[in-house]
Amino acid sequence: MEDRKHIEVCFTPGEYEYFKGEYDIVVVIDVLRATSAICAAFDNGIKSIIPVATIDEAREYQKKGFLVGAERQGQIVEGFDFGNSPYSYMKEELKGQEVVLSTTNGTKALSIAADAPTVVVGALNNIDALCEWLSVQDKNVLCLCSGWQDKFNLEDTICAGAICDQLISSGNFVSDEDSSIAAKYLYLSAWENPLGYLKSSSHRRRLKNLNLNEDIKYCLTPNKTKVIPILKDGKLVKL
Amino acid sequence: MEDRKHIEVCFTPGEYEYFKGEYDIVVVIDVLRATSAICAAFDNGIKSIIPVATIDEAREYQKKGFLVGAERQGQIVEGFDFGNSPYSYMKEELKGQEVVLSTTNGTKALSIAADAPTVVVGALNNIDALCEWLSVQDKNVLCLCSGWQDKFNLEDTICAGAICDQLISSGNFVSDEDSSIAAKYLYLSAWENPLGYLKSSSHRRRLKNLNLNEDIKYCLTPNKTKVIPILKDGKLVKL
Repeated sequence: MEDRKHIEVCFTPGEYEYFKGEYDIVVVIDVLRATSAICAAFDNGIKSIIPVATIDEAREYQKKGFLVGAERQGQIVEGFDFGNSPYSYMKEELKGQEVVLSTTNGTKALSIAADAPTVVVGALNNIDALCEWLSVQDKNVLCLCSGWQDKFNLEDTICAGAICDQLISSGNFVSDEDSSIAAKYLYLSAWENPLGYLKSSSHRRRLKNLNLNEDIKYCLTPNKTKVIPILKDGKLVKL
Repeated sequence: MEDRKHIEVCFTPGEYEYFKGEYDIVVVIDVLRATSAICAAFDNGIKSIIPVATIDEAREYQKKGFLVGAERQGQIVEGFDFGNSPYSYMKEELKGQEVVLSTTNGTKALSIAADAPTVVVGALNNIDALCEWLSVQDKNVLCLCSGWQDKFNLEDTICAGAICDQLISSGNFVSDEDSSIAAKYLYLSAWENPLGYLKSSSHRRRLKNLNLNEDIKYCLTPNKTKVIPILKDGKLVKL
């Protein structure tokens, strides 16, 4: 029992302060859509992504000539090259490039977690590859859900619960926090039909209103890629 | 649809700032054990309870001659008359008395919610009476879970999910927030055997270690009472 490592879940960036310092690896999750888009970007051969928390920082990089994506409230911020649709990162001209990204929830969570020893990016898109890698690290792992405007959201929680379930099933991990137990329960009741389950999610409704059904389908499809984005010196690169 | 009122769930006192101002009634929930003990106290004929957030405030009242309960980390704070065991409020000599109470999580949540138009106390112990009353108020309702040391906990969430389920079933309420939807799912999967479900709860383990199994059984038993404690001018009284 004592040799087992912890896999725990923090529901929102605001609660991270009560978890921080106890985990060797933080997995940042923003299923709809930042971390799904980041995985899509590396799968498409993008060289690196600089995540920034604020629009001001994003504009600074733009002035320096970087390709910059910025999303707020589900839409591309005026004057920027793209938002956080996974499809916008699949373009040929982005291969080998370094881009900058700021989103409502995901890059904020990345910046909050940046002080952890290791920070990786998780999504349903890369979940099996991520769990396989996590399972051999022999480290305590925290899934940090990005939430929606500082509140709990279902899709990030279900992704985190799926990670807990896979790692616990391996026999080398244990969950203690009530949030982790709840995430696993929610995942187990959702997994047979994640799209149907998430119909009731407020965030999904918001995206539907913005005609982003294709994005949602992409983001909720497990294992589109084996890439694991990792934060190195303030930049996300492929592990 | 538009005529229906909202029943939503806030998982922790820390997230309350993202909900506050939008709800006419806040239900403060701390199943293990503050709000269960408060219901037990009124059921036993206590006249009023003054909830205070800090031990310093509790000591001030003690100096003035009040009967004062104080609990931290599941135990009675040294020098105080009682903690937050429901059984400590069932004594004959407390009938008709005014007491002061400070607990780790519950009274903190009460003090955070105090600015809401109406604040009532919820627990599994008074859930049906509470829901019956809420269902005829025609107001937007927020369940504020006290959590455990600022983190999410299962038992408060399940109680909140049960309140959502009852009010939504009445046809006059709707839930929009992902936290409310998750609470309802967790309740529905837990309800058949709440004691069994909560075995995995970290808080329950903590209490078990303190030999508080009788308290836990009491707190997890629905509908022991019909009292609804309500906050009036900084004091809890029977509605």
